[in-house]
Amino acid sequence: MKVRFGGDYNPEQWPEEVWTDDYRLFDTARIDTVTVGVFDWALTQPSEDVYDFSTLDRIVERAAAEGRQVCLATGTAAHPAWLARAHPEITRVDFEGRKHRFGGRHNSCPSSPVFRRLSAEMARRRAARYAGNPAVVAWHVGNEYSGACYCDLCAAGFRDWLRKKYEGLDGLNAAWNTRFWSHTFYDWDEIEPPSALTEHWRGPDHTAFQGITLDYTRYMSDAMLTNYLDEKNAIRESSVDVPVTTNFMGMFRGLDYHKWAPHLDFASWDNYPPDDTSQARMAFTHDLMRGLKDGQPFWLMEQTPSFTACRDVNPLKRPGVMRLWSWQAVAHGADAVLFFQMRASRGASEKYHGAVIGHSGRDDTRVFREVAELGAELDTLGDAVLGARTPARVAILFDWDSWWALEISDGPSRHVKYQSVVLAYHQALWDAGVDVDAVSVTADLSRYDVVVAPALHMLKGDIAQRLEAVAARGGTVVTTFLSGRVDEHDNAFLMDVPGPLGTLMGVRVDEWDARAPEVINPVRLGELVVESRLLFELVIPQGAEVVGEYQSDFYAGTPAVTRNAYGDGEGWYVAAGLDQAGVSWVMRQVLDRHGLSGPYPDVPDLETATRVAPDGTRLLFLLNHNAVPVEVPARVGGVDLLTGTRVEVGQPLSLAARSVMILRQ
Amino acid sequence: MKVRFGGDYNPEQWPEEVWTDDYRLFDTARIDTVTVGVFDWALTQPSEDVYDFSTLDRIVERAAAEGRQVCLATGTAAHPAWLARAHPEITRVDFEGRKHRFGGRHNSCPSSPVFRRLSAEMARRRAARYAGNPAVVAWHVGNEYSGACYCDLCAAGFRDWLRKKYEGLDGLNAAWNTRFWSHTFYDWDEIEPPSALTEHWRGPDHTAFQGITLDYTRYMSDAMLTNYLDEKNAIRESSVDVPVTTNFMGMFRGLDYHKWAPHLDFASWDNYPPDDTSQARMAFTHDLMRGLKDGQPFWLMEQTPSFTACRDVNPLKRPGVMRLWSWQAVAHGADAVLFFQMRASRGASEKYHGAVIGHSGRDDTRVFREVAELGAELDTLGDAVLGARTPARVAILFDWDSWWALEISDGPSRHVKYQSVVLAYHQALWDAGVDVDAVSVTADLSRYDVVVAPALHMLKGDIAQRLEAVAARGGTVVTTFLSGRVDEHDNAFLMDVPGPLGTLMGVRVDEWDARAPEVINPVRLGELVVESRLLFELVIPQGAEVVGEYQSDFYAGTPAVTRNAYGDGEGWYVAAGLDQAGVSWVMRQVLDRHGLSGPYPDVPDLETATRVAPDGTRLLFLLNHNAVPVEVPARVGGVDLLTGTRVEVGQPLSLAARSVMILRQ
Amino acid sequence: MKVRFGGDYNPEQWPEEVWTDDYRLFDTARIDTVTVGVFDWALTQPSEDVYDFSTLDRIVERAAAEGRQVCLATGTAAHPAWLARAHPEITRVDFEGRKHRFGGRHNSCPSSPVFRRLSAEMARRRAARYAGNPAVVAWHVGNEYSGACYCDLCAAGFRDWLRKKYEGLDGLNAAWNTRFWSHTFYDWDEIEPPSALTEHWRGPDHTAFQGITLDYTRYMSDAMLTNYLDEKNAIRESSVDVPVTTNFMGMFRGLDYHKWAPHLDFASWDNYPPDDTSQARMAFTHDLMRGLKDGQPFWLMEQTPSFTACRDVNPLKRPGVMRLWSWQAVAHGADAVLFFQMRASRGASEKYHGAVIGHSGRDDTRVFREVAELGAELDTLGDAVLGARTPARVAILFDWDSWWALEISDGPSRHVKYQSVVLAYHQALWDAGVDVDAVSVTADLSRYDVVVAPALHMLKGDIAQRLEAVAARGGTVVTTFLSGRVDEHDNAFLMDVPGPLGTLMGVRVDEWDARAPEVINPVRLGELVVESRLLFELVIPQGAEVVGEYQSDFYAGTPAVTRNAYGDGEGWYVAAGLDQAGVSWVMRQVLDRHGLSGPYPDVPDLETATRVAPDGTRLLFLLNHNAVPVEVPARVGGVDLLTGTRVEVGQPLSLAARSVMILRQ
Repeated sequence: MKVRFGGDYNPEQWPEEVWTDDYRLFDTARIDTVTVGVFDWALTQPSEDVYDFSTLDRIVERAAAEGRQVCLATGTAAHPAWLARAHPEITRVDFEGRKHRFGGRHNSCPSSPVFRRLSAEMARRRAARYAGNPAVVAWHVGNEYSGACYCDLCAAGFRDWLRKKYEGLDGLNAAWNTRFWSHTFYDWDEIEPPSALTEHWRGPDHTAFQGITLDYTRYMSDAMLTNYLDEKNAIRESSVDVPVTTNFMGMFRGLDYHKWAPHLDFASWDNYPPDDTSQARMAFTHDLMRGLKDGQPFWLMEQTPSFTACRDVNPLKRPGVMRLWSWQAVAHGADAVLFFQMRASRGASEKYHGAVIGHSGRDDTRVFREVAELGAELDTLGDAVLGARTPARVAILFDWDSWWALEISDGPSRHVKYQSVVLAYHQALWDAGVDVDAVSVTADLSRYDVVVAPALHMLKGDIAQRLEAVAARGGTVVTTFLSGRVDEHDNAFLMDVPGPLGTLMGVRVDEWDARAPEVINPVRLGELVVESRLLFELVIPQGAEVVGEYQSDFYAGTPAVTRNAYGDGEGWYVAAGLDQAGVSWVMRQVLDRHGLSGPYPDVPDLETATRVAPDGTRLLFLLNHNAVPVEVPARVGGVDLLTGTRVEVGQPLSLAARSVMILRQ
Repeated sequence: MKVRFGGDYNPEQWPEEVWTDDYRLFDTARIDTVTVGVFDWALTQPSEDVYDFSTLDRIVERAAAEGRQVCLATGTAAHPAWLARAHPEITRVDFEGRKHRFGGRHNSCPSSPVFRRLSAEMARRRAARYAGNPAVVAWHVGNEYSGACYCDLCAAGFRDWLRKKYEGLDGLNAAWNTRFWSHTFYDWDEIEPPSALTEHWRGPDHTAFQGITLDYTRYMSDAMLTNYLDEKNAIRESSVDVPVTTNFMGMFRGLDYHKWAPHLDFASWDNYPPDDTSQARMAFTHDLMRGLKDGQPFWLMEQTPSFTACRDVNPLKRPGVMRLWSWQAVAHGADAVLFFQMRASRGASEKYHGAVIGHSGRDDTRVFREVAELGAELDTLGDAVLGARTPARVAILFDWDSWWALEISDGPSRHVKYQSVVLAYHQALWDAGVDVDAVSVTADLSRYDVVVAPALHMLKGDIAQRLEAVAARGGTVVTTFLSGRVDEHDNAFLMDVPGPLGTLMGVRVDEWDARAPEVINPVRLGELVVESRLLFELVIPQGAEVVGEYQSDFYAGTPAVTRNAYGDGEGWYVAAGLDQAGVSWVMRQVLDRHGLSGPYPDVPDLETATRVAPDGTRLLFLLNHNAVPVEVPARVGGVDLLTGTRVEVGQPLSLAARSVMILRQ
Repeated sequence: MKVRFGGDYNPEQWPEEVWTDDYRLFDTARIDTVTVGVFDWALTQPSEDVYDFSTLDRIVERAAAEGRQVCLATGTAAHPAWLARAHPEITRVDFEGRKHRFGGRHNSCPSSPVFRRLSAEMARRRAARYAGNPAVVAWHVGNEYSGACYCDLCAAGFRDWLRKKYEGLDGLNAAWNTRFWSHTFYDWDEIEPPSALTEHWRGPDHTAFQGITLDYTRYMSDAMLTNYLDEKNAIRESSVDVPVTTNFMGMFRGLDYHKWAPHLDFASWDNYPPDDTSQARMAFTHDLMRGLKDGQPFWLMEQTPSFTACRDVNPLKRPGVMRLWSWQAVAHGADAVLFFQMRASRGASEKYHGAVIGHSGRDDTRVFREVAELGAELDTLGDAVLGARTPARVAILFDWDSWWALEISDGPSRHVKYQSVVLAYHQALWDAGVDVDAVSVTADLSRYDVVVAPALHMLKGDIAQRLEAVAARGGTVVTTFLSGRVDEHDNAFLMDVPGPLGTLMGVRVDEWDARAPEVINPVRLGELVVESRLLFELVIPQGAEVVGEYQSDFYAGTPAVTRNAYGDGEGWYVAAGLDQAGVSWVMRQVLDRHGLSGPYPDVPDLETATRVAPDGTRLLFLLNHNAVPVEVPARVGGVDLLTGTRVEVGQPLSLAARSVMILRQ
C-alpha cells in the first residue's frame, strides 16, 4: 500500500500500438493507477439500443495485465450526439433562456428522465461488467458536476422540490417574503426558475428575489446529487464494496459539497489553482475537501503536471512546483496523487493542456522526468502517511448557503466576496503555521479551541448556540461584518445585527457604510494601524471591549474590532474589511490566547503541516514554497522520510527552494 | 398645511401587531403622509375574477384613524404571477428578443390588451372604493414607469403609431431616409421594432437607423403614457378632484417627461443620486422636475433615509445629509418630503435598502433620530414655503429628443454624453448661485435673460426663431458643439452647421475632430487657458467675434468660443468640449452681462436658492454642502425660519457643516 | 488612362436637382469614376415580381452622359424589407442562436435558396441591362461580405460541405478527434454548427472543438464565396469581359481571401485603418491585397476623405493625410483611388461619415479642396504607374487558417494575436524600407531571398518542404513561437515542436511558458537587451546556433532566438514574444545577410516603395508620414512626377510634412 500515483488516461483516443509506449513510460514513472472511461459514452453506447464495451474491455484488461489499478468512470459527463438528436430534452436551457443543442460536456439536463435512465443504465452495465475485476479499485461517477439548467423539466422538478420543502404555498410565500413586489403565488405552477427571463438582471448574482434564487441554487445542487445517486445506486446493484466517488472542484460555488459528501465513499478533487502563488489557498481547499468527510483522507484526482489550457494565460509550473504541490496535497490528507492527464490529446480544447506524456511521446522532457522522480519518491514513502489524520485545534466554518446569500444580496456591497473574506482569515492561520480544519456549520465543534466564522451571513439551526458553547467552555469564536444577518430563508433577523450572534459578540450594529474599493479607513489595533475597506459596520458595544477603532470619517474613534468575554472564553467581532495585516494581527491575538502556533510562524511561505498516523506517529511536513532556500532550526527531531536523514531538535535545517521534508517524529 | 412628510409604507408585508409599532414610531417622527399599495396587485386581485381589498381596507382605515393622509397607489407596477401564467402576453420581450416569464417588477407589456384592461380595472375599483375617504389626498399610478418591450403586440402598436404620425409610407420613408441601405418600406407590416434582432449592434445605442430607433423610443414613451392614462381615466370615473401623479426618476432617459407632464396633476419624483457629491446634479434635477409643470411645486416622492441597496456600492448618508438634501428639495420646489421606505422589508432585493424603521424596530438609531428631527423642523416651518415659485432669470433647455438623437448617433464621438454637457453648464450656473429653470424647447422663453441650450442636437418647431427672439430683445443665448445638427426626424440640415442656429451664432462649421478622452486641446479664454477634449469643431466666423482659441493641433489659433451680436443681445457658441473651468468662465461672462449672480458666487458648495411665496415674501435658502462650516456675511436680512433668529444685512453668518438656513426676507 | 478617382455615389437618395450640383462638383474635383447601386435592391425590386430600374437607368445614363465611368454594383448587400417578410428564411440566425428579422445590412443567410435565387437574378438583370453601356467599367458584387449565419439551412449546408470534404464520418471523426469528450458522430445529421448553443463558451474564440469551429469558419467563407459566384456567373451570362470584383476589407478575419481571390478579376478593398498612426499597417494590408492576385494592381475601393462614423471616436484626417494615404495606396499597387462617399447621407448611421460633398453642398471646405487637388495631381500623373509591379525580394506568409487556429486555441495564451505577430515582423521590414510581398502559403516562393512566417501555427501541404527549399538555395526563412504546431485539421503533430519545421530550424521545444502581459523576460541579442513577453518557448538546440538568450526566470541563459545553417541558407527561430526592437534586430540581421535595405532605413516613418512599370521604368515613392519635414540625401536620381523637378543622386531632398515624391528613375 502506498499513495496512489497516476491519472486520467484516454487510450481510446489512440491506436493500440501507442498503448505499448504508454505502459513503457508508466513503468518508468511508476504509475500505478489510471482513471479510464471518463468521456467514453459515445464510444460505449453507439446508439440507444447498442452497447459496445469492446474497447473499454481492452483498456481495462490491458491495465490489469500491466498490473495497474483502475479508477473506472461511468462515462456520463458528456452525452453522445446521437442522444441529443434522438432526445432533445437532454440538452440544457441556460440562464439566458436559450435551449442548447449538442456540444461541449457537462451538458445534460439533470431533470431529464432520458438522461437519468440512460446514465444510470450505463453505470449499471459498467458495474455489472467490471465489478468483478480486482484491478478496479474505485468508481468515478460523472465528472466535475457543474452548471445549471432552466428548462421546463427543471422547472417542474423545482416545484416538486419546493412542495417537499414547504408545507404549502403559505410556507413558501412566507419564506420568500412574496408580499414584496406582488409576488404571492397562488398555484405551484406559477413558479418559474429564476433566470435572466424572470427575476434576474445583470446576471446570476442580481436577482429581484434572493429567496427564490437561493432555493433554485439549492435545488440544482440537489438535482445533480440525484444524478450522482442514480449512478451510484446502479453501481451498488453489482459492486458492493468498491468505493464510489466523483471529482469535486474545491471551492466551487455551484454545488453544496457538504450536502454531497455523505454520499461519497471518499472525497476527491481537482486542483487547478488560479495562479502559482496560491499555496495558502490550496492549503485551505485541501482542508475543506478533507473536512467534507470528517477528516478522512481524500484523492487528489487531477492536477496538471505542467500547464493548463483553458485560461487566458497558462503559465508553466516551474521546476519543483509539481512535486511541491503534490506533497502539499499529501500533507493535507491526500492518499492519491493523480494527474490530468497521462497522454496529451491531439486535438480539441485540451490539446495544449499539459500531460505526463506529450505529443512527441518523449521520456526525456523535464516534465516527464519530474513525474518519474516523484513516482520514485512515493514508492520510497510507502504506506507511512496512509490513514493519517490532521490534529487541528482550529476550525474555519465554510458555508455554501452563506456564500450564496452574501453574493446574491442587493446591498450593502457587491465588492465583498465570501471567498476573499474566508481566505484572509485562513491566510492568517496558515502564516501562523497552525493546522486547520475547514468544516460545515453542522460539524462537531467540541474539539476546537478556536472557531472562525468569517462572513457567516446566514445562521441555520443551532449554530449560534453551538458557537456560544465553544466560548462558554473557554474557546474563542471570531466572526466578522455581514455575519448573523439572515435566517435560512434569507430573511433578515428582526433584531439587532449581528442577530443571534449578538449575545456572544456583545455588540449591536445599527448602520453600515459601504465605500468604493479605493476608499480606505485606517484602523488602529494596539500599536498597529492597518487599512480597512469595502464595508464598515458601526458598532455600539453591548458589553464588548473595544480592540480596534476606525481612524477616519464621521465614525472615527468608534469600534472596528471588539472582544467580548463570554463564559470562560471570548467572542471577537471584526466589523470592518481589514487588510491582511489587520486580519493577521487579530488572529495572532486569538491564537496566542490558546498558545497555538506552528513551528515557524515568522518564516514566510514555509508551510508546515502535521499528520498523525493511525499508530500515533506524528509526521511533520515542511514545504518551502519560496523560490529561494530557507534555513531554520529544527523544532522537532525525527527522520526525513524522503531521504532517511536523521534530524535532531535545534539542528539547522536547510530547505532548498521549493523543497519538501517529511519528519517522522 | 405644511410640507408633507412620510413615505412608502407596506404594512401588508407585516402582521398587524407590527402596525401598532409603526404608528407609535410615526408619531415620534411626525410622519403625516404614507404612500400605500404600490405593489399589492397580487394581494388585492388573487385571481382574474376575484378582488379582495380587505387588507388594503384595513391599511387605509388604520392610516385614516391614526390621522395620516394617504397617497394611494393603483398597485399595477408589478403584475401577479397568476396573471402571467393565465395570459403570457402580459410579459415583455426584451431588446435581445427574449420573451420573459413571470418575475421582477415593471414587467408588463404596455401594449397588452389584458394588461391595459386589468390595470385600468384595478385603478377603477380602487378609486370607486376609496375616493370618498378624505384621508386619500393623492393617487399614485403605477411606479417608476420604465423599460421597453419588443413583442409583436408592441410591433403592431408601433405601426399604428407610425400610421398616425406619418401621412403615409412615403412620409415615413422620407423621414427615415430609407433609400439608405435598401430600407424602403412598401407595407406597414414590414416594419420591425429596432432591437438586437433587427437594426442594432452593440446594444441599444448602436443602430443602423437612427430614425427608426428614435421613433420607437418615442412610441414606447407614448405607450407607457397611455398605460398611465388608462388608469388615470379610470380613477376619474369616481374620483373627480383628488390629484393624480406617478413618480418620475429625474433625468431618466427612457421617457420624455415633457410629454407626460401635462397629464399629471402634480409632478413627483424619486431622488437617488449616483453619489454623495451630487448636490449640483440634484439641484438641476429638481429644477427639471419643477419645470415639467411650469414651475409648480412637486413632491419628492422617494429618497432613502440612509442607503440604497441596488448599487454595487451603497454608501451611508453621513449625519446631516438626509436633512440637507431634504431641504434642498424644498428649496427647489418640493412641498412633500417622502422616503422609501417606512419599514425595511425582511426579504428579497430591498432587504438592505435603508428605511426609517430598520429590522430591529428601534427608535434610537441615528437614522431614526435624524428623521424625527426633520419631522419636527417641518412642523416648525408650517406653510411658509407652500405654493412658492422660483424667480429664475436663466433657463437651461433640456430636450429628450436631443438626448436620444445625440447618444444613438454614429459619429462623431460616443464619449460625448448629453447629460454631461448639460450638467457642466448647469454646474457653472449653480456655482454662480443663480436660480435656474430647466425647461423644454417649447417653453415660454420670454421671461428669461439668459437661455442656455447645451448640445441641442435636434431643432424642432420654431425653437431657432424663439432663441433668436431672446437675443433680439437683449438676452443672451448660449449653445455648444453638436447643436443644430438635425431636424425632428434626425436628418441633417442641408446647410452649414449649426443649421438654423447659424444666423444667431454667426458661425459656420465645416469639419470637426473627435479624439480619445485622454487628448487635450488647451483653449485660451482671455487670460485663462483651460482644457478641452472629446470634440473640437472647427469654426469659421461669419460675423461672430472670437472669444477663445484652440492652442494646439493644426487648428491652433482658430476659434473655440465665439460671441455674436444679434439684435440687442448675443449668441455664444462653444465649439469645444471645455472643462468645467472653461464652461464656468463662459457662463460668468454671460451672467455678468446681465448682472446676474447669487450672493456667494465664490464660496464653493454653498448653495443658495430663492423662493417667492404667493404673498410675495422672498425666502432665501442657504444650504452648506460642505463637510466643514462656512462663514459668510449676510447679503440680505430676514428671519431664519428654522431657528427664528433674526439676521441683519452684512452680519456674519456661520453655517455649520451640512447645515441649512431659510431666511424670510 | 490614369489612376481612377471617385467613389461610392448614391444619387437615389436625392432629388435629381441635387445631381446637377454633384456633377458640377465632380468636375471641380476631376472625379472620373463612380460606384453606384451598392444598396438599391429595395429600390430596383419593389416586390418579388416587379423590377424597376428606372431610377438606376437615370443614374447610369447621367453618369455616362457626364463622361464618368461606372463601377456598377449588383445591389445585393442588403435585402429589402418585403423580402424578409415574404421569406423569413432569408434573415440570419446569429452566433447566440437568435433568429434575426429585417434590419441592418449584410443580413442575408448565405444558404438561403431564396437569397441565392433572387440575388443572382438581380445580378443577371443588371448585367443584361447595363453590360452594353461602355461607361460600365467594372462589376461590384455585393459589398464587404462578412458575418455568419447559424440557421438550419446553414447547418444542412455545413453537413453537405463536410460530406464533400471528408470521405465519410470516419474521416471526420478522426479529423476532429471526436473520441475526446464523447463527440463521435454516427450520423451526419448529428452535427451542429458550433455556436453559443453548442460548442462555444465566452464567445466565438472559445470552443470545445477547434476542428469543428475551424471547419465552420472555412465553410462560412466558402458559402459566401458561393454567393459571390452566383452573382458573378449570372453577370457573365451577358457581360463577358467587364471585370468583376467585390470589395474586401484588408486583414479581415472572417473570410479566407486567398480562397476568394482567384474568382475576382481584380482585387479591391476598403481602407479604414484603426487610427492615424497606421502607416505601416496600411502598407502591409496593401501588400496583402496586392498579393491576392499575384502582384496585380488593385483598386482602393473605399476610404474616407475626412472621418468615419462607426467608431467610438472618429478623428478628422489632418491636412495632407488623405492625399498621403492615397499616394501610399498607389505606391503599393492601387490603380484606383476611390472614396466612400461622394455626398453625405442625410440620415441613418452614416450621416456623420465624411464625404467629398458635405450636407451644406459646399465646394470651399478644406476637405473638398484637398480632394480636388488630389484629382488634379492624379491627372498630372497620367498613366505613369499603371500596370506597374512591386519588385519584392522579401515575402511574409499570411495564412487565414493559422490565424483562425491560433486564436481559437485553448492555450497557451489568449493574448498572442496573429495580426500582432505578423505586423511586428512587417514593421521591421517596413522600417528597413524594403519592398515586401504578403502572400499565401501556396504562393511561389522561388523569387524571394527572405521568407518570413510569423506564427505559422498550421502547416498545410508541402509548405515545410518549400520553406526548406528557400533555405537550401541560399535564402533565409524566419519563423516564430507557435509555428508548426498543427496539421490542416488542427491536430497536433506527433513529433517535437516545431513539427515539420524542426529540421529547417534545428531546434526542439518541449515546453513553453505563458505569462501575463505585464511579465517581461529580457532577451540578449548581441549587444542589445530587448524585452519579450506573453509566450516563452524553451528551446533545445538540435544543431542551431544560439543568437539570443533569455535573461531571467529558471530558463535564463537558454535560447530565445536561434539560427540554423540549412543548405546554402539559414533558418531562424524566434521562440519568444520579442518587442519591436527585438524583432527589428532579428530582421536587420536577416536583411543584412542578403544586402537588402531601403534607401533610408534609419529615418523613421519615411516610407519608400518601388514600382516597376511595364516598360521597366523604376518609380521610387517617398512618403513622409511625419508631421514634420524630413531632409535626406537623394539615393537615386530621377524626375519627381508630381512636380516635374529633376533630382540628382546625393542632392538633399526636403520632404515637407506628410508630403509625397514619386521619382521616376
